[in-house]
Amino acid sequence: MNEVKEPREFCLVVSCPDAVGIVAAVSQFVAQQGGSLTESNHHTDVAEGWFYMRNVIDANTLSIDIDEFREKFASLAEKFEMNWHVRDGHKKQKVVLLASHASHCLADLLYRWHSGELHCDIPCVISNHENLRSMVEWHGIPFHYVPVDKNNKQPAFDKMNEIIERHNADTIVLARYMQIIPPNLCAQYAGRLINIHHSFLPSFIGANPYKKAFDRGVKLIGATSHYVTEDLDEGPIIEQDVIRVSHKCNKDDMVRLGRDVEKSVLSRGVRLHLEDRVIVRGNKTVVF
Amino acid sequence: MNEVKEPREFCLVVSCPDAVGIVAAVSQFVAQQGGSLTESNHHTDVAEGWFYMRNVIDANTLSIDIDEFREKFASLAEKFEMNWHVRDGHKKQKVVLLASHASHCLADLLYRWHSGELHCDIPCVISNHENLRSMVEWHGIPFHYVPVDKNNKQPAFDKMNEIIERHNADTIVLARYMQIIPPNLCAQYAGRLINIHHSFLPSFIGANPYKKAFDRGVKLIGATSHYVTEDLDEGPIIEQDVIRVSHKCNKDDMVRLGRDVEKSVLSRGVRLHLEDRVIVRGNKTVVF
Amino acid sequence: MNEVKEPREFCLVVSCPDAVGIVAAVSQFVAQQGGSLTESNHHTDVAEGWFYMRNVIDANTLSIDIDEFREKFASLAEKFEMNWHVRDGHKKQKVVLLASHASHCLADLLYRWHSGELHCDIPCVISNHENLRSMVEWHGIPFHYVPVDKNNKQPAFDKMNEIIERHNADTIVLARYMQIIPPNLCAQYAGRLINIHHSFLPSFIGANPYKKAFDRGVKLIGATSHYVTEDLDEGPIIEQDVIRVSHKCNKDDMVRLGRDVEKSVLSRGVRLHLEDRVIVRGNKTVVF
Amino acid sequence: MNEVKEPREFCLVVSCPDAVGIVAAVSQFVAQQGGSLTESNHHTDVAEGWFYMRNVIDANTLSIDIDEFREKFASLAEKFEMNWHVRDGHKKQKVVLLASHASHCLADLLYRWHSGELHCDIPCVISNHENLRSMVEWHGIPFHYVPVDKNNKQPAFDKMNEIIERHNADTIVLARYMQIIPPNLCAQYAGRLINIHHSFLPSFIGANPYKKAFDRGVKLIGATSHYVTEDLDEGPIIEQDVIRVSHKCNKDDMVRLGRDVEKSVLSRGVRLHLEDRVIVRGNKTVVF
Repeated sequence: MNEVKEPREFCLVVSCPDAVGIVAAVSQFVAQQGGSLTESNHHTDVAEGWFYMRNVIDANTLSIDIDEFREKFASLAEKFEMNWHVRDGHKKQKVVLLASHASHCLADLLYRWHSGELHCDIPCVISNHENLRSMVEWHGIPFHYVPVDKNNKQPAFDKMNEIIERHNADTIVLARYMQIIPPNLCAQYAGRLINIHHSFLPSFIGANPYKKAFDRGVKLIGATSHYVTEDLDEGPIIEQDVIRVSHKCNKDDMVRLGRDVEKSVLSRGVRLHLEDRVIVRGNKTVVF
Repeated sequence: MNEVKEPREFCLVVSCPDAVGIVAAVSQFVAQQGGSLTESNHHTDVAEGWFYMRNVIDANTLSIDIDEFREKFASLAEKFEMNWHVRDGHKKQKVVLLASHASHCLADLLYRWHSGELHCDIPCVISNHENLRSMVEWHGIPFHYVPVDKNNKQPAFDKMNEIIERHNADTIVLARYMQIIPPNLCAQYAGRLINIHHSFLPSFIGANPYKKAFDRGVKLIGATSHYVTEDLDEGPIIEQDVIRVSHKCNKDDMVRLGRDVEKSVLSRGVRLHLEDRVIVRGNKTVVF
Repeated sequence: MNEVKEPREFCLVVSCPDAVGIVAAVSQFVAQQGGSLTESNHHTDVAEGWFYMRNVIDANTLSIDIDEFREKFASLAEKFEMNWHVRDGHKKQKVVLLASHASHCLADLLYRWHSGELHCDIPCVISNHENLRSMVEWHGIPFHYVPVDKNNKQPAFDKMNEIIERHNADTIVLARYMQIIPPNLCAQYAGRLINIHHSFLPSFIGANPYKKAFDRGVKLIGATSHYVTEDLDEGPIIEQDVIRVSHKCNKDDMVRLGRDVEKSVLSRGVRLHLEDRVIVRGNKTVVF
Repeated sequence: MNEVKEPREFCLVVSCPDAVGIVAAVSQFVAQQGGSLTESNHHTDVAEGWFYMRNVIDANTLSIDIDEFREKFASLAEKFEMNWHVRDGHKKQKVVLLASHASHCLADLLYRWHSGELHCDIPCVISNHENLRSMVEWHGIPFHYVPVDKNNKQPAFDKMNEIIERHNADTIVLARYMQIIPPNLCAQYAGRLINIHHSFLPSFIGANPYKKAFDRGVKLIGATSHYVTEDLDEGPIIEQDVIRVSHKCNKDDMVRLGRDVEKSVLSRGVRLHLEDRVIVRGNKTVVF
């Protein structure tokens, strides 16, 4: 009787100084282990002399396991001075969601997770408000209420950090969490802390972007998902989109229309991140 | 033998403090003259207490001509403190185009005019470069070369102003004319001087927006057509649009992709203006 | 002490043969009752000689209530042979949702209702599967499981009809309900029965549109919300949208990407319908 | 003194049955010749077991010329049963344009060619009408008037074929050429004969798509650029796009709005084709 192997994929992500022979070396390495590529993306930034690559390998065709893959690949990686990692697609990332009062982004991410579209584990949701507890708990996910004292925020962030570390989070998503994240958290989760800003950055940086958009009389409003860095709203952009507005829209209409863009831009950004499609360099991203 | 009347339309544009009975009064006035409405747009800005209206009237159904219409309507207009005008759709606006070295916006406007899509006269094109002369003259349009001395710009602007006034221009379009327009011209042609800015305003105000967009790593680039005011890139926005870019695009790709957005946003803006669909109030527009 | 009146609006929707003086007559009628218009849309279909109008009236400015409004307006309506109705914006429509196994459209509508964005009552959800019961009931909405025997469907439809009538539904929404609705139900709820078709109609009529789209190699896929008529997928279209796909998308990717378009096109269609913005004539709609 | 080498690229396009080691073999081959990849795209169609690849190689880094490249690569290609070609990016394709009476697509292509955006030679334009002669000749391109006798079309097609062959055309573009191309021409130029259809295929196949779209009451109209095959409007799709319409649009408005989509979809399709980014297999395309 034939054993049917479940589909299983390793994702190998590489960036390094550009050089002749990188693709040849990497693809030969994979082929030598019997690996069949199911998806492969390359990008050469000619101006910067930098090379980016993402390979998805059918793990069932490999003669080695992931630890052996890592061990063997390391010497190749060293030769080309690669930043690299390889991830077993079966191993789900642990994603902690942070929310405030607004529900739309959180509800959207929870729905996509619940319906199996978002391939991750959500060990918990943390919020500085209680109002979304019931929605979160219906999904079978623990809800942590961590109120933030506006005169003394550090204890709340310490508490959040403790929860995040306890759950061993790979990625943190700010689903319209309206507090500014302290620098140490930004640094600790660099490239793994995703925010949604409710404007088409760099337009309308800071608070109340819809009010600013309304006052400026723009004809499109947008949203931006980006990695969080110390500089507010300045981190590397993952995804953006816009929606048309007109003189008929008051501020509330803009907020309402904007919600749909926000949740779609955030969930697309999170999906791209979870699929290891985003490579950060400096303040910019390559998105395969 | 029946005489076939050519279709002919009057366009009546009104804005005024909001009040009960404006629509009734205006539409009753039109109906009393036998006028049939072929298009009608209203907007009430509840927050500002301001009312906007654009009515297109089948002139063939009217018992009066446009002068009599104006005369009779004046007392109604006074009662409601209206800003208003009525225009005979048959009378084409005179539109002077200004260009620099780049041809895409100019070529697009000329094509649309030549093919009959843009309903206006173009008495001349003015440029501070000679390179587009042949293209303009092929269309049968006079081309004026007015070079700008960067150390003494006023004579050039005086010359341009003289040409514009001689042609009795209704509207001026800056089709990527890269010189800053002096305040007196901005004031003189307020609400009739249209620019295309090659970014999604208010992102990337000022020079080199594509370079700024590239450096910021945005995922969409855009363009904005707006009325020119003294404050550079701050005038009332008529139309905006965006196009998707990615890490694959270098600065030149952005410039190339941007050209298509620029020309489409500018020609849409000009068309809306020529059809009297844009009403300015403060720094914002109502676009019917 | 001043009494603060809650904002309250009447929505008056009219369509009739075009004639001189309709707008004047209607707006004069409204003004005579002291009514202030907060939104007003007109459309004249010149080719068909048909006129469409939607007026939103600030009810607090009216000197009469809705019954008196209806009574007084009737004679005016008769004069112009109007199809018309006026609705009190405070009175929520009762919307029954029908679903099958797929959850995305239902979840989206329930979320928008729960967050207050969709202004209606949802007296119940009916499904031919049990799997969505928990999600529906978490929202506090009764869930009716009405399985359909594929060899004898009539009893199920009778049961559904009985439930719908008992709840006195104004509107029925097929949120990916995958059964063909019998002609008598289509007739009974003409103009009040909304479906989402998972293609950009008229492309890929019938079953398995994503498979057909994949096989044809299209570069965009879409969705269409429309009123249900006896002719499958041929009813008046309310709203459509598309999303870009590529050779990288297999059928499952198309289904996944399509879900986002479906739910957004359906919720926009339902919202437009609930706000009385859709007027059906023949097989087409005017959407204000 | 250092000699500055002009940038020069070879484009290698491959499709073949999928197998382990193709990328390794090809990239190793390129690296062995010293070749630096400036762009690389792969696609594996897992369901069909077919592999697609496009590599852009910096020719200045190669130790061999294109003939030697071809010779050496042939044995590798044979091993993997590849369909393949390599093209010198410096050698411009010869593109013959066919047009009828409508000017928008032709004008757009000519403008993009004239401004240097479209990298090709246009040896001539052929039309069955005389009206576009002046526009074509202003660009310095020969214009051939080949009228089509609707009762005997073969002589016209023979004449056109003779002109096309005399100019040794690589690619033919039907810029709204409204005649049905005879099967022998379709076969002879399979994969090199590009058409623009003025609808979002497969909606509204055949004549008068805008009328059909208007009658159906769709809310978006579109255009499709595709390779021409014997089956009218059924060939492999290269590119599609849409634009929003509403009840306000009559048929003429749809035609006008559609023109902008047509020309943009056609020029994008032609550009993709000229850059060797389109690989046809069966009735579908991979577009890198």
